[in-house]
Amino acid sequence: MATATLPSDTIAGLAALIRRRQVSPVEITRMVLDRIAAVDRRLNSFITVCADEAIQAARAAASEIARGRYRGPLHGVPVSVKDLMAMRGHRLTGGSKILADHVPDFDATVVARLREAGTVIVGKTNLHEFAYGVTNNNVHYGPVRNPWDTSRIPGGSSGGSAVAVAAGLGAGTLGSDTGGSVRIPAALCGLVGLKVTYGRVSRHGVLPLSWSLDTVGPLAWTAEDAAILLRAIAGADPRDPSSSDAPVPDYQGGLRGGIRGLRVGRPRQYMFDLVDSEVAAAVEEAIGVLRSLGAEVEEVSTPWLDDAISAAAAIVHAEAAAYHLAWLRTRPQDYGDEVRERLLVGTSLPAVAYVQAQRTRSLLIAQMEVVWRAVDVLVAPTTPAPAARIGDATVPVNGREMDVRTTFIRCTYPVNFLGLPSISVPCGFTRAGLPVAFQIIGRPFAEDVLLRAAHAYQQQTDWHVRRPPLA
Amino acid sequence: MATATLPSDTIAGLAALIRRRQVSPVEITRMVLDRIAAVDRRLNSFITVCADEAIQAARAAASEIARGRYRGPLHGVPVSVKDLMAMRGHRLTGGSKILADHVPDFDATVVARLREAGTVIVGKTNLHEFAYGVTNNNVHYGPVRNPWDTSRIPGGSSGGSAVAVAAGLGAGTLGSDTGGSVRIPAALCGLVGLKVTYGRVSRHGVLPLSWSLDTVGPLAWTAEDAAILLRAIAGADPRDPSSSDAPVPDYQGGLRGGIRGLRVGRPRQYMFDLVDSEVAAAVEEAIGVLRSLGAEVEEVSTPWLDDAISAAAAIVHAEAAAYHLAWLRTRPQDYGDEVRERLLVGTSLPAVAYVQAQRTRSLLIAQMEVVWRAVDVLVAPTTPAPAARIGDATVPVNGREMDVRTTFIRCTYPVNFLGLPSISVPCGFTRAGLPVAFQIIGRPFAEDVLLRAAHAYQQQTDWHVRRPPLA
Repeated sequence: MATATLPSDTIAGLAALIRRRQVSPVEITRMVLDRIAAVDRRLNSFITVCADEAIQAARAAASEIARGRYRGPLHGVPVSVKDLMAMRGHRLTGGSKILADHVPDFDATVVARLREAGTVIVGKTNLHEFAYGVTNNNVHYGPVRNPWDTSRIPGGSSGGSAVAVAAGLGAGTLGSDTGGSVRIPAALCGLVGLKVTYGRVSRHGVLPLSWSLDTVGPLAWTAEDAAILLRAIAGADPRDPSSSDAPVPDYQGGLRGGIRGLRVGRPRQYMFDLVDSEVAAAVEEAIGVLRSLGAEVEEVSTPWLDDAISAAAAIVHAEAAAYHLAWLRTRPQDYGDEVRERLLVGTSLPAVAYVQAQRTRSLLIAQMEVVWRAVDVLVAPTTPAPAARIGDATVPVNGREMDVRTTFIRCTYPVNFLGLPSISVPCGFTRAGLPVAFQIIGRPFAEDVLLRAAHAYQQQTDWHVRRPPLA
Repeated sequence: MATATLPSDTIAGLAALIRRRQVSPVEITRMVLDRIAAVDRRLNSFITVCADEAIQAARAAASEIARGRYRGPLHGVPVSVKDLMAMRGHRLTGGSKILADHVPDFDATVVARLREAGTVIVGKTNLHEFAYGVTNNNVHYGPVRNPWDTSRIPGGSSGGSAVAVAAGLGAGTLGSDTGGSVRIPAALCGLVGLKVTYGRVSRHGVLPLSWSLDTVGPLAWTAEDAAILLRAIAGADPRDPSSSDAPVPDYQGGLRGGIRGLRVGRPRQYMFDLVDSEVAAAVEEAIGVLRSLGAEVEEVSTPWLDDAISAAAAIVHAEAAAYHLAWLRTRPQDYGDEVRERLLVGTSLPAVAYVQAQRTRSLLIAQMEVVWRAVDVLVAPTTPAPAARIGDATVPVNGREMDVRTTFIRCTYPVNFLGLPSISVPCGFTRAGLPVAFQIIGRPFAEDVLLRAAHAYQQQTDWHVRRPPLA
């Protein structure tokens, strides 16, 4: 395998080498493409590999850098994007049969911004069909396998993206997160995953699951790498009216400074209920690390978080069904059973339930204002359990078999409902060697705070330095 | 009648007298209360008259002004508010039987702001039940009568508000506009009515009809008076998260300057179809006046305006039904037939129709950006026909009998759907002596432009100087 020769598998690590011209983007890109060829038949993390285009982009980057035109820490760095995002001239499948031959003639804004930053996009990653699920057990393109244990799911829906980074098939990637689809696979694969504030990153050219909740965000090994990726993709986009014109800080520059005095809230209700004991122990330990770094941890009361789940489901069901309505009528057989059934539920939902869910959303967002007076961030497990086995409908939580989907979205879905940013950070491994993670949830547009906290945590711990056995 | 003794019935006119202490707010308030006692049994424009409180407020104003503490052009001026808005200690009926005995212990933000500006609130005006209709033929509180012809409707749902001003029962008023409920009664009663940009004015304490479309706005005889009222009520409100923090200009100060070079668009499609010939002629004449004032009038293409109506209806149906759901289950018999039937339609609407309507809304708002590159404002009739007869289900338009509701909302509803501000301005009378109006529609938060254009028009015309025969 090509592993031993990759000089670094983080963005910051590669950037340092590329900037000093100690390695060439072309060399790095070839290594990544070789590695994809070597391991991805098994992992199945890519739907499309753009080898020729990647080599061309790497050559262009190398040539620019040789001429002294260094664009920044993504220049010449190989990355991937979830195959939910348009990339000119390549098929945009959304993990579906319905769009298997759909080739857009434009770039999603996030893809265009990655290109402007000088990245080398090596391919488009596998995902749960139309991003509507958490297992990444894709009936059309095959299941994605978790490199920490290939009998297990990587989580989803951005599972291919997470696996691509975890297996060294690019140093960073973009996923989308509607109910946890960036954070869940990041957690199950041992990566940092950043779910951004609703509106922080343009969704132009990204297939929608739920207009009210969809976000696009980065996955990488470190908070620093996530900061670099977010800086490249964030900011207003006239082609996405839901994108915010809130200023985009220098996230990487803002990483230093530590978290002394940061007020960290530990939700008394909901978030720590029904969590596997191994996960809970690792998260408590992580909270202890934050405390040791000077954070002030206190309990906060959020008894209404329970209400978020059913309301969020009403919103996603209705919006997903509205987007898919025409295909549900003309091509029902072309959906996988799981996604078709979920979409059909949405078609029969009454409008009043949807409207009331949106009202609940406004009310809970107002409730959060009270919480934000007391604390700066919240901490919680990302997922209540580590990766489930591929094909299993349930996952054991403290010996009880729980439904896979409702278990994995339990702690992430409410965050989308509230429109908040949240970063998932690796914080340990189970005895079976599966990654475990916690999330830090912040105020709207406080991605800088989350990244700084995660960076401070990662400076103090080494969970993010381990690599899956495969690598 | 008390008419002859009222020294002025406009806000600016009264303000000039009050400021110079040529009349006392107490004197003015007594005259208005006497006048209500004299004429409102017939017109039925008030549900609640707050005589004692009004006299107290007038005395407080008089005393402040006597001490040299003049608050501004609303100080000591009698006004009314639609009985959809909370006023501490007075019942808030919403024109319904269901809330007939509902007495809130707080003020709606707009009521609080009117008080801060020093107004004397004389009472709460009649409306279409729960603001869900255009005739103001209220089965619980009786029909409101148009002072220009008491056999006719005043329009609605803010019909009581319009009649109160048109009959001299206060110099200004607040209504709400979800599909035309400020502009339609303003048009049918010969007043200026301003439908504000969605988010311009707080809705805290105002009973909702449709969260996505509801707005609160002023009615008065002149654009200047509307500017004074808007300045008092506009601006961000932490208690209404949908309120915008866009700065509030000095609308009155911005009235001068004229409209030379203003690019006025005349929609080629939809807005001028199906308009009664007398109305159409008056509107064309008004456009001619704008041209004579230096505006550049050109045709613009908005073929998609047709799509706005059915999508707007889906949104209002669903949101109204969601708000009323519990009462529809427990107290269906307490609604009037018309409103109950309309609400029941909403309960059976599928969520996907609602979601698609919201998507249509986003797309049409984006379409409008193209229009706003070519012109600064649009002009159109406010209503396709003058006031219908009370109790009639139809209204004649060029000899054809048309459904009252769909006719009167035809030109106003799309403006709510697009979230835009629009000012209705009187521009003539039919041969039968009924007021006719046109509206000027602007970019989001361009209320200042609309008020300036309406003011320039009113400086050149005298339609707003006429008073109904009753007065």
